[in-house]
Amino acid sequence: MSKKIKIGVLTASDRASAGIYEDISGMAIQQTMQDYLKSEFDIIYRCVADEQNIIENTLKELCKECCLVVTTGGTGPAIRDVTPEATENVCDKMLPGFGELMRQVSLQYVPTAILSRQTAGICGKAVIINLPGKPKSIRQCLDAVFPAVPYCIDLIEGPYLECNEDVIKPFRPKKS
Amino acid sequence: MSKKIKIGVLTASDRASAGIYEDISGMAIQQTMQDYLKSEFDIIYRCVADEQNIIENTLKELCKECCLVVTTGGTGPAIRDVTPEATENVCDKMLPGFGELMRQVSLQYVPTAILSRQTAGICGKAVIINLPGKPKSIRQCLDAVFPAVPYCIDLIEGPYLECNEDVIKPFRPKKS
Amino acid sequence: MSKKIKIGVLTASDRASAGIYEDISGMAIQQTMQDYLKSEFDIIYRCVADEQNIIENTLKELCKECCLVVTTGGTGPAIRDVTPEATENVCDKMLPGFGELMRQVSLQYVPTAILSRQTAGICGKAVIINLPGKPKSIRQCLDAVFPAVPYCIDLIEGPYLECNEDVIKPFRPKKS
Repeated sequence: MSKKIKIGVLTASDRASAGIYEDISGMAIQQTMQDYLKSEFDIIYRCVADEQNIIENTLKELCKECCLVVTTGGTGPAIRDVTPEATENVCDKMLPGFGELMRQVSLQYVPTAILSRQTAGICGKAVIINLPGKPKSIRQCLDAVFPAVPYCIDLIEGPYLECNEDVIKPFRPKKS
Repeated sequence: MSKKIKIGVLTASDRASAGIYEDISGMAIQQTMQDYLKSEFDIIYRCVADEQNIIENTLKELCKECCLVVTTGGTGPAIRDVTPEATENVCDKMLPGFGELMRQVSLQYVPTAILSRQTAGICGKAVIINLPGKPKSIRQCLDAVFPAVPYCIDLIEGPYLECNEDVIKPFRPKKS
Repeated sequence: MSKKIKIGVLTASDRASAGIYEDISGMAIQQTMQDYLKSEFDIIYRCVADEQNIIENTLKELCKECCLVVTTGGTGPAIRDVTPEATENVCDKMLPGFGELMRQVSLQYVPTAILSRQTAGICGKAVIINLPGKPKSIRQCLDAVFPAVPYCIDLIEGPYLECNEDVIKPFRPKKS
């Protein structure tokens, strides 16, 4: 039997990591993964402060085991927002199309979408995707980019993800 | 009484800085700020040659006093166009969504919009936004991105900007 | 008589460079240039393995003679895909608007368009444009960005490209 699929969820938030409030965003990502995926999988969850070196180390650790690591928080212009920089530092290659599409989708709802610096990239055998901090925006962004994620994981030789196609339709181009 | 809001306007142009022609673009930005803002503010205006180190030093100087610095000129592919590089060098973090949206808006008018390399970012407690060189494009771009600017300045702990809402509608999301 | 226009076509592909399959993509670019350009030109064609240093050296060599270098292949997330990194390393300045627009156009056809990391930039007196690997996507992307290419070459002091305007309409803004 093949090794079980592992998906990392990383919340970067000073307040959530200090227990000042509940990490609703991290839970929203986990729920969305349950909705999307038909394949069995385990979630590895981390909630850390907005410290760039802590985020980098946690991303590296998660990418050793996971094929997909989704972050929430720390993508804005404030001084403590450093998730995109941490992501860029640990990635072997960047995928600018994810940030472009997520900002474009969010722009349909709020003009402040352009303040989000979220990005994505490949770290070893994992895809890292930064999501915004607000639960509602999380689902809007994931609905837009997730159809490309299973094929992306195929291309970096990760596990084959099967989706609940009534919820999300993955796209895998025919081999040319 | 609170310290008066200061906005920097920086024109990068070999010819305008040499007095060969009038800096219509710099004036267009100042006029647009007068149209947009209900809050009182002072403009700090600079017009310099397309020299990267001069642009960088001027940006750093302006960002010490201003909450917003708007540049015009030097964003194209020509050898003397170095404003985006200067901006990236002085910024603590980049805001790629500004350039993406401004190019998208300009593309509705001219296919050469993709040649513009304009970007935006945070330098200390100021937002820097690169605008194109042509007065008409300046207003098109500012109309698209400015609704996000007052909230961006809130997030970096700058002054509270009030707008003439019949001209431009700033958007500030409710705290989550 | 003026020196003849030279256009570089670089295919980055382990399999095509090893003769395992025919380089249909490289041929598709050459055919598209024949369709687009009324000016006489020569194609300088190279087909190399997906090795970053080889791609960089080939790009540098092509950019010494050509005003335009179009690449195909190596823009995805797989470990051997390194064309965008090679392009960024040899370029003096980047033109992010090309990648943004090409991904946006490809997104109308396939959700996996966001996996493409294609970019463009200026290397000396040449424009380098990364295209996707599939012939159909090549034409979709070129149709979108090529109208800006002749003016871009004007701005970097290259030769004046004339197009077959019934096939592609170049745009040159009036001097302001």
